[in-house]
Amino acid sequence: MTDALPEGVAPPPERTVAQDAQLALLLEVTGTPKPGNVDRAHDHDDLRFEHFVTGAVGALPGLRLAADGEPVGDAFERAVAGMSQQAAGNTQFGALLVLTPLVRAAADGDLSPDGARAVAEATTVEDAAGFYRAFEHVDVAVEEPPAGMEPLDVRRGAAAIPTLRERALTLSDVMDRSTDVDGLAREWVGGFERSFHAADRLLDTEGPVPDRAARIFLELLADEPDTFVAINHGQATAERVSEQAAEALGGERDPWALADELVAEGVNPGTTADLIAAGLFVALRRGLEL
Amino acid sequence: MTDALPEGVAPPPERTVAQDAQLALLLEVTGTPKPGNVDRAHDHDDLRFEHFVTGAVGALPGLRLAADGEPVGDAFERAVAGMSQQAAGNTQFGALLVLTPLVRAAADGDLSPDGARAVAEATTVEDAAGFYRAFEHVDVAVEEPPAGMEPLDVRRGAAAIPTLRERALTLSDVMDRSTDVDGLAREWVGGFERSFHAADRLLDTEGPVPDRAARIFLELLADEPDTFVAINHGQATAERVSEQAAEALGGERDPWALADELVAEGVNPGTTADLIAAGLFVALRRGLEL
Repeated sequence: MTDALPEGVAPPPERTVAQDAQLALLLEVTGTPKPGNVDRAHDHDDLRFEHFVTGAVGALPGLRLAADGEPVGDAFERAVAGMSQQAAGNTQFGALLVLTPLVRAAADGDLSPDGARAVAEATTVEDAAGFYRAFEHVDVAVEEPPAGMEPLDVRRGAAAIPTLRERALTLSDVMDRSTDVDGLAREWVGGFERSFHAADRLLDTEGPVPDRAARIFLELLADEPDTFVAINHGQATAERVSEQAAEALGGERDPWALADELVAEGVNPGTTADLIAAGLFVALRRGLEL
Repeated sequence: MTDALPEGVAPPPERTVAQDAQLALLLEVTGTPKPGNVDRAHDHDDLRFEHFVTGAVGALPGLRLAADGEPVGDAFERAVAGMSQQAAGNTQFGALLVLTPLVRAAADGDLSPDGARAVAEATTVEDAAGFYRAFEHVDVAVEEPPAGMEPLDVRRGAAAIPTLRERALTLSDVMDRSTDVDGLAREWVGGFERSFHAADRLLDTEGPVPDRAARIFLELLADEPDTFVAINHGQATAERVSEQAAEALGGERDPWALADELVAEGVNPGTTADLIAAGLFVALRRGLEL
């Protein structure tokens, strides 16, 4: 009875931009195996699937602010605050950092590398302040700041805001200073290239969407060492994991066995998962069907 | 940095009533093994985990209408319409049917059997019309209507609305006529007794919430034959499945093996899963932590 609706029955609503971002968060954690990450079939001890689900539920109001034209920094901070309302703390900080500008670009009607770059470049010092405030809600693994940047260590949270204002640093400026250590900062300054690439791959492949997401996770991981792994376990480990991902893609290694190994090691390629969430969002806006 | 927030950082928002209902839908499908149902570890061929996730994302605006005081029938119809935007069709029709009045009761400040009963009893003919309109969006497995009730066969969808109006039947009246075949109709006329019982059990048990949900699913299924199984496979099968659930609870049968068997048979105790969603919602409102 779902084809021609009779008079008096409104057609189903289309998903909004913010709903697609929430769905992207949920589909990201559903795709399995994404070796090392929490997914439909894998938990870490204190970071479990249900924490991600709860995070995605809590993040929606902040994502909606981004879609409604509120400042990107404020929207991100509210998304993180809502996401943080579960025992595991930081489940989707990185995913929200890359999704928020993409949500704004979609709401502005230009969900393209140029549109997303324009959103990033239009950020202000107040957006940077929102980004720093977001660190008050969760503990995020980060590198030590480079020399001269100690006053802007993100672990200082809102205490760093006066320095941001003194130096007149926008959120885009802050990201620009982290591109050597953070794959998401590279997205911010590089037109979200890998996010859009992931979206293209999701739309080009076939089968259940979570299976595609898991496949493309391996592709991205094989292409570039995960910066979250590098921060937590060193660059050598990050490079080894990328080689293992390439082997899994090439059929020389069982991705399920690799998932078990990395979970046991506590190695969690979270940045690559964040890019998959971003790619899922773009693909959903472009018609990816479930 | 999550304890004492500095000046200028707003505390994280609490989840709204509607968000807790959405989270309940997601946690329900996360709990595993819930033998026969789609869950974190089980799919049916054309009804997969990601369809439930997508349904939960799409249902939220309708749930929000219920929380905002819109007519229960309209809110339910919009929740079903939003839920239906994925290829599997009916993922959470029943769960929404039991959640919608509970959401309203929570928003009214009395999420108790009496409060939920009051919501059910206050429904109107227009609420019944909304219920019938909801069947325009998805195909739902139902029993043949009893003699004299053919004009009100739910499969007629909106075409049955003139008859509802002629007979002045409220949504509560419609439910009252289905209690012999539908466990959710029994909830509507019986103060949502099993939903509240499930909530009590969820709050009384320990461990990860999805594991508790899976355990209590077996308890409910062992207690009473699932009416969705009875409609699709007959009462004898429904009774057999309840015995199997009791054996799984008692340790005489492996619940994972039972899950595989029931999925292979296509036997899906969906009504019991709907009660778990309702119980999760009530428990979340009462402080269930994740």
